Amino acid sequence: MLRNATVANVAMQDVFSDHVTLQRMLDFEAALARAEAQVGVIPATAVQAIVSRCDAGLLDVAQLATAATASGNLAIPLVKQLTRLVAQIDAEAAKFVHWGATSQDAIDTGLVLQLRDGLDYLEAELGKLAASLAVLTAAQRHTPMVGRTWMQHALPVSFGLKAAGWLDAVLRHQDRLAELQVRVMVLQFGGAAGTLASLGEQGLQVAQALADDLQLDLPATPWHAQRDRIAEVGTVLGLIVGTLGKIARDISLLMQTEVAEVAEPVAEGRGGSSTMPHKRNPVGCAAVLTAAVRVPALVSTLLSAMVQEHERALGGWQAEWETLPEIMRLCAGALEQLQQIVSGLTVDEARMRANLEITRGQIMAEAVTLALGAKIGRLQAHQLVEKACHRASVQGLHLGDILRDDPVIQSDLSATELARLLDPANYLGQADAFVERVLQAYEQRALREF
Amino acid sequence: MLRNATVANVAMQDVFSDHVTLQRMLDFEAALARAEAQVGVIPATAVQAIVSRCDAGLLDVAQLATAATASGNLAIPLVKQLTRLVAQIDAEAAKFVHWGATSQDAIDTGLVLQLRDGLDYLEAELGKLAASLAVLTAAQRHTPMVGRTWMQHALPVSFGLKAAGWLDAVLRHQDRLAELQVRVMVLQFGGAAGTLASLGEQGLQVAQALADDLQLDLPATPWHAQRDRIAEVGTVLGLIVGTLGKIARDISLLMQTEVAEVAEPVAEGRGGSSTMPHKRNPVGCAAVLTAAVRVPALVSTLLSAMVQEHERALGGWQAEWETLPEIMRLCAGALEQLQQIVSGLTVDEARMRANLEITRGQIMAEAVTLALGAKIGRLQAHQLVEKACHRASVQGLHLGDILRDDPVIQSDLSATELARLLDPANYLGQADAFVERVLQAYEQRALREF
Amino acid sequence: MLRNATVANVAMQDVFSDHVTLQRMLDFEAALARAEAQVGVIPATAVQAIVSRCDAGLLDVAQLATAATASGNLAIPLVKQLTRLVAQIDAEAAKFVHWGATSQDAIDTGLVLQLRDGLDYLEAELGKLAASLAVLTAAQRHTPMVGRTWMQHALPVSFGLKAAGWLDAVLRHQDRLAELQVRVMVLQFGGAAGTLASLGEQGLQVAQALADDLQLDLPATPWHAQRDRIAEVGTVLGLIVGTLGKIARDISLLMQTEVAEVAEPVAEGRGGSSTMPHKRNPVGCAAVLTAAVRVPALVSTLLSAMVQEHERALGGWQAEWETLPEIMRLCAGALEQLQQIVSGLTVDEARMRANLEITRGQIMAEAVTLALGAKIGRLQAHQLVEKACHRASVQGLHLGDILRDDPVIQSDLSATELARLLDPANYLGQADAFVERVLQAYEQRALREF
Amino acid sequence: MLRNATVANVAMQDVFSDHVTLQRMLDFEAALARAEAQVGVIPATAVQAIVSRCDAGLLDVAQLATAATASGNLAIPLVKQLTRLVAQIDAEAAKFVHWGATSQDAIDTGLVLQLRDGLDYLEAELGKLAASLAVLTAAQRHTPMVGRTWMQHALPVSFGLKAAGWLDAVLRHQDRLAELQVRVMVLQFGGAAGTLASLGEQGLQVAQALADDLQLDLPATPWHAQRDRIAEVGTVLGLIVGTLGKIARDISLLMQTEVAEVAEPVAEGRGGSSTMPHKRNPVGCAAVLTAAVRVPALVSTLLSAMVQEHERALGGWQAEWETLPEIMRLCAGALEQLQQIVSGLTVDEARMRANLEITRGQIMAEAVTLALGAKIGRLQAHQLVEKACHRASVQGLHLGDILRDDPVIQSDLSATELARLLDPANYLGQADAFVERVLQAYEQRALREF
Repeated sequence: MLRNATVANVAMQDVFSDHVTLQRMLDFEAALARAEAQVGVIPATAVQAIVSRCDAGLLDVAQLATAATASGNLAIPLVKQLTRLVAQIDAEAAKFVHWGATSQDAIDTGLVLQLRDGLDYLEAELGKLAASLAVLTAAQRHTPMVGRTWMQHALPVSFGLKAAGWLDAVLRHQDRLAELQVRVMVLQFGGAAGTLASLGEQGLQVAQALADDLQLDLPATPWHAQRDRIAEVGTVLGLIVGTLGKIARDISLLMQTEVAEVAEPVAEGRGGSSTMPHKRNPVGCAAVLTAAVRVPALVSTLLSAMVQEHERALGGWQAEWETLPEIMRLCAGALEQLQQIVSGLTVDEARMRANLEITRGQIMAEAVTLALGAKIGRLQAHQLVEKACHRASVQGLHLGDILRDDPVIQSDLSATELARLLDPANYLGQADAFVERVLQAYEQRALREF
Repeated sequence: MLRNATVANVAMQDVFSDHVTLQRMLDFEAALARAEAQVGVIPATAVQAIVSRCDAGLLDVAQLATAATASGNLAIPLVKQLTRLVAQIDAEAAKFVHWGATSQDAIDTGLVLQLRDGLDYLEAELGKLAASLAVLTAAQRHTPMVGRTWMQHALPVSFGLKAAGWLDAVLRHQDRLAELQVRVMVLQFGGAAGTLASLGEQGLQVAQALADDLQLDLPATPWHAQRDRIAEVGTVLGLIVGTLGKIARDISLLMQTEVAEVAEPVAEGRGGSSTMPHKRNPVGCAAVLTAAVRVPALVSTLLSAMVQEHERALGGWQAEWETLPEIMRLCAGALEQLQQIVSGLTVDEARMRANLEITRGQIMAEAVTLALGAKIGRLQAHQLVEKACHRASVQGLHLGDILRDDPVIQSDLSATELARLLDPANYLGQADAFVERVLQAYEQRALREF
Repeated sequence: MLRNATVANVAMQDVFSDHVTLQRMLDFEAALARAEAQVGVIPATAVQAIVSRCDAGLLDVAQLATAATASGNLAIPLVKQLTRLVAQIDAEAAKFVHWGATSQDAIDTGLVLQLRDGLDYLEAELGKLAASLAVLTAAQRHTPMVGRTWMQHALPVSFGLKAAGWLDAVLRHQDRLAELQVRVMVLQFGGAAGTLASLGEQGLQVAQALADDLQLDLPATPWHAQRDRIAEVGTVLGLIVGTLGKIARDISLLMQTEVAEVAEPVAEGRGGSSTMPHKRNPVGCAAVLTAAVRVPALVSTLLSAMVQEHERALGGWQAEWETLPEIMRLCAGALEQLQQIVSGLTVDEARMRANLEITRGQIMAEAVTLALGAKIGRLQAHQLVEKACHRASVQGLHLGDILRDDPVIQSDLSATELARLLDPANYLGQADAFVERVLQAYEQRALREF
Repeated sequence: MLRNATVANVAMQDVFSDHVTLQRMLDFEAALARAEAQVGVIPATAVQAIVSRCDAGLLDVAQLATAATASGNLAIPLVKQLTRLVAQIDAEAAKFVHWGATSQDAIDTGLVLQLRDGLDYLEAELGKLAASLAVLTAAQRHTPMVGRTWMQHALPVSFGLKAAGWLDAVLRHQDRLAELQVRVMVLQFGGAAGTLASLGEQGLQVAQALADDLQLDLPATPWHAQRDRIAEVGTVLGLIVGTLGKIARDISLLMQTEVAEVAEPVAEGRGGSSTMPHKRNPVGCAAVLTAAVRVPALVSTLLSAMVQEHERALGGWQAEWETLPEIMRLCAGALEQLQQIVSGLTVDEARMRANLEITRGQIMAEAVTLALGAKIGRLQAHQLVEKACHRASVQGLHLGDILRDDPVIQSDLSATELARLLDPANYLGQADAFVERVLQAYEQRALREF
């Protein structure tokens, strides 16, 4: 839909287009015919005709939409149309269309095939984002900037540390995606009530051949009303989008006119305003944040929908149909946008430096207190610095000036030493070590992938 | 999307189609030109050209979709296209397109215009559902059926009482919809930051003329980042869908093969199965329940999205764009389906009667105890009946048979009296009075509407 | 729970304490005894004993908790304990405890009584917040500040206009609360299956007497499984919390170290840090935002829970029990915090002025363009100003300086005129008119309340 | 809270009690002192005094609750109280309380320690549920029952197959829990802005010693504002509760008075009714379903809360504090209830058999059609059986009787053969094979655990 355009991702829209949705169900029907012929359940002569008609381009989509309302799902009218199409070229073969399967077999397996494409895409995109974040982390490893807690200046950090935190989360998401796929890339095939009864003794054999044909795993048992696999896709994507949203929130805060430490990459027609020349709107961040507002609730829908009745549900299953594709689309759109932002991010290191001076040295009070405390005792140091901070605030002066003029401090800290203590670059603690640890984890992961 | 087909509602899909979404924004632009010319802000000569190009059919929709991703919303490229279209026929008029307005003015007011159509439709459909429920309530006023608590037989009720409970909730929803519309049918018009600054002294005059032109109320102030109006639409629809879901849950439970007290109306190709001839699937209820699973989370998205930054938000506003239309569509689809079900519901009164006998009279134990208690004391009566129930259960007999053979009971309750006490139709308490009260409320409401 | 302490509200915690929860159910039981005696259903002699034992202080709460797990709700063991307590003083009266009622009657009516206290409290607090916002709006009516869209500087607004937007939303919430209470302040009384069958012909009379005793309205019919009333309380509070969150988001953004336009009121031990003397954490805003993150999902739970089975539900009803009180508590806590913040807000008008200068005049580019356009034509003016803005950006100069030196502009705009155009206070459009409209709406509402 | 009593779990309530919440934060503080002394950051002489006061029993809890509102979190007043307590016995040691740490270090690590206990408990309970389900699956392996789709009779299944589907999902949840713990069992330790700056060069050494002391992993970097670990706990529990809800939904449907195929275990005071002797309320299922209604929305809160600002968030972090413990409690309560239900489930195999006859043989129509089709052609068989079904329905006869009297069928299917075809036990397809596959997976998993 047009309203969604700002967070659109063409690749994922394609994976879940109406056309592909139908084609993946037809892929199931074609593979089913092949598998059943192979096992000897249907005549080998029926395969060619069936497979040749499993082409979404041949369907009457408008009729499908109308009929789905009456029949309660898409597969029923789709199988009817397919049967009619096959009958036009081979009346005998038409009898074996969808043989032994139930609507949900086609719908769910079709969805799994779409998820395979979709998750492969997300995996690749997540890899690209990780790579861009690794580059950013390494590049900004030694750039001091303000660390902010409660949306207030706290202590200095490095921009590399901030980016390393983002990257570290993305690495965990890569693990989650990998673990998820083991569970979700499975066939759905159980027939009307999950027993494959109409296939007699050959049900399991057909199932195995069908799974092999589609390159999916054969699960221990059909899972028509056990939806944890489907819901898990939603939850893992929900976690990913949460991290993307966190990064976009950070970047949009850093882009505020008053902060101006980073900016989204510039592009023609992107984020500007003709009457407000000073504007550089974070349109990419807005798209990511849109996804971050929307996805959590969609995930809760999948979880609520898990409470499904008996062997096939009334409402719960159907509630997944639009919800999971929407999560996939939003996640892909957010990933694409953020990947573009991160890989082209403008970083104003001078402004980061300048913002460290907004509190006129008070952001370094702790550093001075600790150094002074080592010489004159912690308590006295604390009182001295606190008094100096108070004076600095009241008089609008820099803390350094107050301290430099203080006779007690002069006797314990030389001007050079004081200058060093007031330099944020010297109070970054283990930031570099943390950056190193994350970059190493990134590299090890990259090696593992080979 | 095709996947949504089972809960589709054509009318609401039209209201929120891409085409109409664009047209309503253009309706805003046309009305703006008229209002500004009327007040004298733009030349009267510009109106005709602008208004004539405010036709969604003239737009390049594919370009809009692409450009929206870069610009962050649909209105920016739409205004550009409109300006170009106007310039083709009147270069001077083109300068006055969208004069003094901001993207959000067009998007929000366009949405309000869509909501007006959508809410009018829902109001009408809710009225039809109320009417059908009133007919059902009146018709089934004296039909005894099992009342079920905890999904277990409890005491007899009438089907009329059950339907009256449904109707009573629908009446409250009609009130809610009416109250809501007072707040939501308002213009959005504030310009870039909500001050209408570029219109100088005439901003308010233009706003009033624009509101009049569109037959909307003029709010006290622009509401770009105050989204309670929008979110309220979602919450009221969420309440409605909750009730629709409750009714559908009840009907689908009553349709179970073992219960079989009601059935959805039969229609060609609806809910049957060729290989399972005994099936009569509640496909309508499934669609309603699908909506009931999905809508609550979508409402929470609108509430989460209310936390919008300053004068225009980053993520929150954009999260509404697909969410509210989806709620409208789901609500309309569920209403349509339920209205069809209720107005054509098959009611098996004999089966209702028969099911009252499943517990072999035990469902009437309380009635007997109370009557007996009035004669021999409550405690003794309770013990007697309890013992009889126990015997009936163990021996698989009807409670009536046990009681009839009990000498103590024989002396206090005649066989006739006992038969009367064991008849569920005689133990419906105030069911009829409650039905009457609800039907009166329905009629009073209907009168008020005139 | 201690973890919730940061958003705690003592008044609402009291309304929904375990003790009061039990007491309100006992209030129902006492009123039931009085009503039934009045109508003649139970002996008048039983009333005194029953009423005297309806005191939560007499209950064994630990036993209640354990027994509730087995029986499935609190009312069953509570009625047992009450019966035992009454029997200790009057064995005959004990027979008439809870006569004709069902657990849900006691639980729901008890809840409605708690909601009455809770909603009265919220109404009063909302009134106080509106009053504080009205004071702030009036006081800041003429204070220019930066208007921000997309979290970027857009055009000047007044702080009064921003506050008026907040106030305007609060006024709508007052209307919603009032409309809600009409629907929700009703008795729940239907007996085991909603027919009041065990009260024979007198059911309705007892219901009316009971409603009168508790000063609640008598609904058309019992509403055991129709939960729109309960869910509506949640939705209205969800809307309120959304607005509170929006205000807190704005304030916390304005409190950022780099922006520093407002600050939460200072209090001992509030929001400071001993090692980071420059910090002034928005702890109140954090509490409000906590509520704003949590409440939307809780509302969706109430909506999901509406799909309740038959005459008493399995899961849906029970899901409300903790959810609605939690919403009430979070809303009350957020209201209390925000009311304190708004009524004691520190406003730095000089800083607001200074921040208007961050873009070095570019925020006024539109104003200059419009004025110049009136003299030399809009297109030429636009090009001129755009070029000037570009030069100002590149050279790091103030737009005013560039314009003042431009010979073309000199000839059309005098230095005085230019200075006027570059003053944000002169480009506030209808801000004052909008403020006036909102304040009038506030005053009219206040008058109506009398 | 008392209202939650029906889904209470004592073990998990203890893990997340106020007392234990405080104690786990104090455990962090004690371990911190030990680690810092070991590394030489604080004097070894300070350890004993600090560790000895890290006892939640010594705290003034009421003061904590009040102070937390002002300071914005629990750790700030807790550290103050702890410092005071230590100072009472060793003024020098008191200076080193909480040295170099930030509030969030104590709160998050305390939470991780609680999660360790909580997840261990859930893992053990999930194991017990799996074991009970495996017993049930094996025992009911050959019990035919109705398979139901759309809440209508479909085809026969075995109760073993149904239970195997439940078990199969639980096995996947065990894998998920194991994978999750690798990510979540990590230390949180970063100091004020995540750099450990105040510990100078020794930050990482202290961190490692602290992690070792608490037997947690040391993460690559502090994760103050990266909340995917925390949210993932919620999502995995959300998936588990979804499955528990599905099982409870199935059981409660099977317990309906009209179905009566299974029943929750009987216990004193559990699920009965004195005035409705026929009732056997599924109170355990109700508790599980309560959790299943509530948890999805709570999970969405954790996902929404992930969008946290900079180095410490405003609202998002705080929103987790009550939400995750509530999910843990609800999951534990639901698990406990379901484990009791499954391990003591009453199964009425005769009733299952009897319900297979409700459609008077029509549930076997497919089986007859397939067998007949092999002899006379599929199309003709289909038409014959369809006609027979229609006659059976109209005349209220058993399909077997109609078929037996049909001359065409008589010639192709002997009475014996027909009887065999009409026996549901002979049309279970691969049910047994699926059961076997799931039980094998269960056993392999159990072996792996050793």
